[in-house]
Amino acid sequence: MTGFGLDHLPYGVFSTEGGEPRVGVRHEDTVLDLAAATGRPELARDRLNDLMALGPRAWAELRAELPGLLERGDHLHEVDRVQLHLPFAVGDYVDFYASEHHASNVGRMFRPDQEPLLPNWKRLPVGYHGRGGTVVVSGTDVVRPCGQRVAPGSTDPVYGPSQRLDIEAELGFVVGAGSALGDRVAADSFADHVFGVVGLNDWSARDIQAWEYVPLGPFLGKSFATSISAWVTPLAALDAAWTDLPGQDPEPLPYLAPGRTRGLDIDVEVELDGEVVARPPYRTMYWSPAQMLAHLTVNGASTRPGDLFASGTISGTEPDQRGSFLELSWGGKEPFTAAGRERTFLEDGDEVVLRYSAPSTTGGRVSLGEVRGRVVPARD
Amino acid sequence: MTGFGLDHLPYGVFSTEGGEPRVGVRHEDTVLDLAAATGRPELARDRLNDLMALGPRAWAELRAELPGLLERGDHLHEVDRVQLHLPFAVGDYVDFYASEHHASNVGRMFRPDQEPLLPNWKRLPVGYHGRGGTVVVSGTDVVRPCGQRVAPGSTDPVYGPSQRLDIEAELGFVVGAGSALGDRVAADSFADHVFGVVGLNDWSARDIQAWEYVPLGPFLGKSFATSISAWVTPLAALDAAWTDLPGQDPEPLPYLAPGRTRGLDIDVEVELDGEVVARPPYRTMYWSPAQMLAHLTVNGASTRPGDLFASGTISGTEPDQRGSFLELSWGGKEPFTAAGRERTFLEDGDEVVLRYSAPSTTGGRVSLGEVRGRVVPARD
Repeated sequence: MTGFGLDHLPYGVFSTEGGEPRVGVRHEDTVLDLAAATGRPELARDRLNDLMALGPRAWAELRAELPGLLERGDHLHEVDRVQLHLPFAVGDYVDFYASEHHASNVGRMFRPDQEPLLPNWKRLPVGYHGRGGTVVVSGTDVVRPCGQRVAPGSTDPVYGPSQRLDIEAELGFVVGAGSALGDRVAADSFADHVFGVVGLNDWSARDIQAWEYVPLGPFLGKSFATSISAWVTPLAALDAAWTDLPGQDPEPLPYLAPGRTRGLDIDVEVELDGEVVARPPYRTMYWSPAQMLAHLTVNGASTRPGDLFASGTISGTEPDQRGSFLELSWGGKEPFTAAGRERTFLEDGDEVVLRYSAPSTTGGRVSLGEVRGRVVPARD
Repeated sequence: MTGFGLDHLPYGVFSTEGGEPRVGVRHEDTVLDLAAATGRPELARDRLNDLMALGPRAWAELRAELPGLLERGDHLHEVDRVQLHLPFAVGDYVDFYASEHHASNVGRMFRPDQEPLLPNWKRLPVGYHGRGGTVVVSGTDVVRPCGQRVAPGSTDPVYGPSQRLDIEAELGFVVGAGSALGDRVAADSFADHVFGVVGLNDWSARDIQAWEYVPLGPFLGKSFATSISAWVTPLAALDAAWTDLPGQDPEPLPYLAPGRTRGLDIDVEVELDGEVVARPPYRTMYWSPAQMLAHLTVNGASTRPGDLFASGTISGTEPDQRGSFLELSWGGKEPFTAAGRERTFLEDGDEVVLRYSAPSTTGGRVSLGEVRGRVVPARD
């Protein structure tokens, strides 16, 4: 069971030695060169954007052709012998904050005297724009960022490498067919626009973030790197994974389609230096993917092929279901054990792998592409 | 005096009836078709990005050729008879908050019991990522955005068109030659990376913004539209406009190059329905353009041709130098007069024009491209 059977067939961009990057589809341990197999110009590109822009009917038609193309046995490469690239040119990247358990944990740590959730949190999916240009493909090293930080209680910053480097285990949604400026994407039009799903690690420097983020939100604490999986799982491969989310109270405004909050039953594993340290369940999220897209566009903001929006850190109810080291170590105060050592935030040389799996339409499981990254020392 | 003499020569993208968009340069009331005049492929594009990516030596060489190309008198079009397009494909858009007078005014209005400036404000140029995909060219109508807002003191939102639609008069800086992931752009390398300057209006829905922005910053209150001028003024045309900014205390950290805070002596005019209602002076800014770029990249964030970063609202010391209606009407409480009527926030049908001028290298003035936008009603 590789998780990459005929019930999955995710898309990516790959190259072989001396060749140009082009669109491929993964089946078991092979990559089918879709550009060569079909001759279509939109697949002979170094990005999925041109395919994604064709819209859901074209996506369905291509997917229906894939088993036949694979059966021919031509244009196949071993996945271990190709180079995988960033699968699409990222337009705007929006990061939400859609897990109640994550937002509550953060609130308890940072504002211990107040209600954990701010008054707007259950009224709208809180989100912000991240940096699209620093989204990198799984396997890219992450250079420890430098910046300003302050000691607790101080307002006199020092400069240097982040000392509280963290991850955020998230799920990313990739817009395929865009929407025009001034239009809104209704919650029930989600599948007309969203092409697929990626694993996503929103690397975060908590010390830089804490000092900079009032009043305009996270900036340099997040903008140095966001890793995504090399494979984009099409929505069609997740048809069996939809499930009801826990429910929402108070009832959101009508544009957020209350009462129909469907999410994905995706299990996430956070692996640090070879040991699984957390298992966040996506089915525990408060806000649904369709609500996030409806909210993102309710003001008439346009979307484009390659826009990416992410869930925010996925954290479940249990301590071992938390999707950040900030939460796993409770702000660094309660170290946890990984690979036999006490850990809080990331050290140079650490490798983090996020793995994702979901029920498939054939009764098995699909494995979304992994998200791997190693921390390398800050540059002088 | 048009402000578009040989001392200026800004770049843009234009088309004539039935023709493809291509790069042009403006001289007086004409546009020189640079694609036709030079035959260069990087100029036969619908965006300046390919030209900008060539770097500062190529920019200087092309600029040196322009007087000769103009003298020939070929490939000229009247500016009133061409269509002007968004001049470059926008990568990441970052908006700073670099005017002390603006940040202080906002602080006094929103946090009247506290110090107007937050503790980090004089330590780093506060900024956040906006939405690159909704940057539009001057002349594009702005649809009044819908969204959630609350009455003062309430936490029970209602949905509807924004009732506090505002502008922010800003200056935008366009990255031409990018920088690699992990690298930092030193403050004194500004001119190696920045191609030029645009006028910029960061339209803002204050009621949407006020409800959504804690803790992750502005999102839908800003992401519906940001207008920029059709013309990009190359840095070389602003050589005579550099001036010392007012000064910084406390001294910023070394990576922000304290003591060398040079800004541009650009006068801005805010015109509402044909009447000038404010004259913000860019020379009063606290943080310099070079400091903004150094800060943006200090964590190793990469930059790309077409990245845009803006100053934030430009407000001077005087009431008639404020670059937003929020400040001009002091939160809507002190209406001001324009075109014979009392005004606070924007009404449907209002037209705002931002105009910019600066001293030129020949002793005259250059007029940056204007930024024009009309408010049209919210869509059902």
